Amino acid sequence: MDVGFIGLGGMGRPMVANLIRAGHTVRVWNRSPEPVKASIADGAVDAGSLAGVWQADVVISMLADDASVRAVLLDDALLAGARSSVHVNMATISVALAREAAELHATHGIGYVSAPVLGRIEVATAGKLNILASGPASLLERVEPLFAAMGQRTWPLGDGPEQAVITKISANFMIASAIEAMGEAAALTEAHGVDPGALVDLLTNSIFPGVVYTVYGNMIKDRRYEPANFRVPLGLKDVTLGLTAGFDARVPMPFAGILRDHFLDAIAHGDADRDWGAVAEVSRRRANLPRES
Amino acid sequence: MDVGFIGLGGMGRPMVANLIRAGHTVRVWNRSPEPVKASIADGAVDAGSLAGVWQADVVISMLADDASVRAVLLDDALLAGARSSVHVNMATISVALAREAAELHATHGIGYVSAPVLGRIEVATAGKLNILASGPASLLERVEPLFAAMGQRTWPLGDGPEQAVITKISANFMIASAIEAMGEAAALTEAHGVDPGALVDLLTNSIFPGVVYTVYGNMIKDRRYEPANFRVPLGLKDVTLGLTAGFDARVPMPFAGILRDHFLDAIAHGDADRDWGAVAEVSRRRANLPRES
Amino acid sequence: MDVGFIGLGGMGRPMVANLIRAGHTVRVWNRSPEPVKASIADGAVDAGSLAGVWQADVVISMLADDASVRAVLLDDALLAGARSSVHVNMATISVALAREAAELHATHGIGYVSAPVLGRIEVATAGKLNILASGPASLLERVEPLFAAMGQRTWPLGDGPEQAVITKISANFMIASAIEAMGEAAALTEAHGVDPGALVDLLTNSIFPGVVYTVYGNMIKDRRYEPANFRVPLGLKDVTLGLTAGFDARVPMPFAGILRDHFLDAIAHGDADRDWGAVAEVSRRRANLPRES
Amino acid sequence: MDVGFIGLGGMGRPMVANLIRAGHTVRVWNRSPEPVKASIADGAVDAGSLAGVWQADVVISMLADDASVRAVLLDDALLAGARSSVHVNMATISVALAREAAELHATHGIGYVSAPVLGRIEVATAGKLNILASGPASLLERVEPLFAAMGQRTWPLGDGPEQAVITKISANFMIASAIEAMGEAAALTEAHGVDPGALVDLLTNSIFPGVVYTVYGNMIKDRRYEPANFRVPLGLKDVTLGLTAGFDARVPMPFAGILRDHFLDAIAHGDADRDWGAVAEVSRRRANLPRES
Repeated sequence: MDVGFIGLGGMGRPMVANLIRAGHTVRVWNRSPEPVKASIADGAVDAGSLAGVWQADVVISMLADDASVRAVLLDDALLAGARSSVHVNMATISVALAREAAELHATHGIGYVSAPVLGRIEVATAGKLNILASGPASLLERVEPLFAAMGQRTWPLGDGPEQAVITKISANFMIASAIEAMGEAAALTEAHGVDPGALVDLLTNSIFPGVVYTVYGNMIKDRRYEPANFRVPLGLKDVTLGLTAGFDARVPMPFAGILRDHFLDAIAHGDADRDWGAVAEVSRRRANLPRES
Repeated sequence: MDVGFIGLGGMGRPMVANLIRAGHTVRVWNRSPEPVKASIADGAVDAGSLAGVWQADVVISMLADDASVRAVLLDDALLAGARSSVHVNMATISVALAREAAELHATHGIGYVSAPVLGRIEVATAGKLNILASGPASLLERVEPLFAAMGQRTWPLGDGPEQAVITKISANFMIASAIEAMGEAAALTEAHGVDPGALVDLLTNSIFPGVVYTVYGNMIKDRRYEPANFRVPLGLKDVTLGLTAGFDARVPMPFAGILRDHFLDAIAHGDADRDWGAVAEVSRRRANLPRES
Repeated sequence: MDVGFIGLGGMGRPMVANLIRAGHTVRVWNRSPEPVKASIADGAVDAGSLAGVWQADVVISMLADDASVRAVLLDDALLAGARSSVHVNMATISVALAREAAELHATHGIGYVSAPVLGRIEVATAGKLNILASGPASLLERVEPLFAAMGQRTWPLGDGPEQAVITKISANFMIASAIEAMGEAAALTEAHGVDPGALVDLLTNSIFPGVVYTVYGNMIKDRRYEPANFRVPLGLKDVTLGLTAGFDARVPMPFAGILRDHFLDAIAHGDADRDWGAVAEVSRRRANLPRES
Repeated sequence: MDVGFIGLGGMGRPMVANLIRAGHTVRVWNRSPEPVKASIADGAVDAGSLAGVWQADVVISMLADDASVRAVLLDDALLAGARSSVHVNMATISVALAREAAELHATHGIGYVSAPVLGRIEVATAGKLNILASGPASLLERVEPLFAAMGQRTWPLGDGPEQAVITKISANFMIASAIEAMGEAAALTEAHGVDPGALVDLLTNSIFPGVVYTVYGNMIKDRRYEPANFRVPLGLKDVTLGLTAGFDARVPMPFAGILRDHFLDAIAHGDADRDWGAVAEVSRRRANLPRES
């Protein structure tokens, strides 16, 4: 397939490489030029300009947040000049922006698919992403070969632009909740003389297996939150997307409210550049641990 | 080994059977007589009386909560007449009661081990429990053959009576937090047109594998909370044990505070006899789902 | 003084009348025409157009929220054509918008004062408002005669556009907190057989005198939340302004988080058109009161 | 009337003095002897022993908490030897203990009245307490002359032992909520450059008059929480009484949950000997205020 790809960050570059490996032609563009060179070395074609990307049949974008999606993609002139028939937006953005984007694309006759993913860089590299997809069924079917090149499984979630997005937001909310629960539990046990590492080993080897508890449990065990894979402010951004979506749909989310405060507490105490696992430290600090005996 | 066993409920009976299978002699007692007969059929010996149990070398008890432990076991006359050298208390009780029990046993020259477990009846039956143990190292070593007969792994957590107990309380707090997080996430996605079942399938097949998310996720997916494996008030009891332990050690636990309120909300609305997975319904009710379009 | 006045709602009209009574000339404009006629009957001058207002020395605006301030006032062409030297914005808006507005005015050489008020319509009519003011000291001094005509006291809070706004947001957060605390207390006492009216009478006649506890206490006592003086969604708007300001300054606000959820719960259950005192009903509903005995 | 009085602390002594001033005979007892001498100097009679107090017609007790009420008053032998016909318990105790106490008194044929008060030492001295009373109507009528001697007004709240107690607990919960709301608001405004003193002055002179906002507002303004009138752990005790009463009656109380955590946070950070107004500092600490610019 003739694919345009926008956003060659840590996730974007290996996704492009996997598309190429699967036999697709990929024209790439990135705001800064270095990643473009790297992708060309992987076999991609330089689109020359943002508008150049939109000459491909299908455009995929993998940008960071609402602000960059709005700045780069929601541009009437750009969309008016596009030859592309469908845009697959893989960013984790707000429900409101997903709806707005789908409407704007419709006015230009371009199909719109939401497709955020679960998985970090190494998962993207292995082509093992879980892809959360929503949009018109015919479009999902059309782009499935592309999803198959990048992920181990596609999860169809509905025919609107918002379902995949809200599901991704919910998944991240659940990861944040797991971190917070571990942080509170670790402070509670530490205050009673149990090594948090023993708690983590027990849980991850019994009732809480899986990547989330293992990765963040080990951070908490070692009290090591650097280098950051996903920084505290990014986590706060996603928690806030959940709160805003809950606000719009009138869904109380008390855990999300607590998370918001603990993330703010973390940032106020200098943890903005640490991995969001560092939110567990808030519980220790509030309990004033360790204490002298 | 010559073992006395008190408490032949759903968990106790298979634990006794596994001890017998491993070659131990087990004298049993239970408040109501029927379970005694069942265990005798499994090969146990009728201790005849509560005092009879305490003639064994090692006494194991598996009772429901603080009230029953206090009523059955914290009895000066009983302990004074005991020949047993160690008591392994496998109930999930409060930190305060664990300390009090250890002190009382010490005045009677009886060793005390805390050993609550992770795992439900079928896990107990399979002899695959995870056993959380704390107490003097020499005692843990002595009773390890008994643990090995009942569980797949023993997790040593410290030399006091409280560490195993607080770790079990923390594990249950984390299960409750996982249920609540799923409940909020399911309400949020449902309000945006995503089938909660799709959310559950996605999560349990990707970042949240394991028994907790699978069991409670499926309850939420089917909105079926009966028959109850673990009723809402029992969950509230354990959340309260966590709050009390946090109170005593001055550890704020905001997630536990939210859980407490949602469990109360569930009970106030008639869910006292449902499985604690039913707490997820509180989020739906607060959002007034489903709504007519 | 030569004054332009924008926004002749329930608050604006009596404020204009008081300015006229104090001898000022007031040119008025309103989006809908009827209120203009009413103010003219009070002695105001028809400004003819929005631009006409900005020919006055001082412009006062009293609009509802961020959206209307942005739509009506943040207009480059309008400000470029203004002869006014200072704009007194009396709306309760976000900190971010107050800053943005001050900057835009500065580029047009127009001074900017934030001056939200405490007091409802009858207080405005009596000229007894408490005026929260921030902005350059020289400007506050200049417009003080206008404040004196409308209020009983001006509270100077700083020299920037944000201080008066954040103080008003904080005051409304405290009112919302008082309502919520009364709601929880009333549910708790009702569940124990105490008439909520007795609680309200006791408190308002002893440790909690003053308008807030009296007005909302009486609503709770009578369970009568209509007609609404200040509807639930407006209260939610102000709580959200507080949360957003806390977010920007990294200030955790757990009470505000609870308020947000209870306001959403109220709206989800059909209370959008009731007075924000109706948030107290959320506590009753969560406790499933009244219960049959 | 012939009155026995137990508990001559800061509150008890002036209450006794006012009873004497009104013409009543008061036999006093206190655990430590010094306060007895002081009350004798005020005109009281030394009861000689705790049993001696119970020879009076009416016994009034003013003790600190559940533990001291249980230790001093819930004594079968003591009550069996009593000639008194009614006991007025003015302590703030748990709902459960109030019920237990009323039952125990009934088995000894002694009437029981709950009568906690609102007001600090200077209010007690002035005989201006607000007395919250519940119990059988005939008993309330009988002891009203005693209430009239100590208070400015009696608030009858029901015919059981629990209503006055739950109302007092609710009032203290509302005071704690007011402190917390002020603390969060002060942190929010301080982070935006507003002097918390300006916020306090504004509020206490407008919408939040009265002793609670004034006393605690001034503590927050001056950041001075010593000497303590009511220490943080006592406040936490009362918040916990509210949570427990809510638990028993299945009433969610999210504000109380937040309060609990902030009180624990305060104590964990060394504020156990400061006035409970110091809980406001938790919000400042969590926001890491003041910050260097």
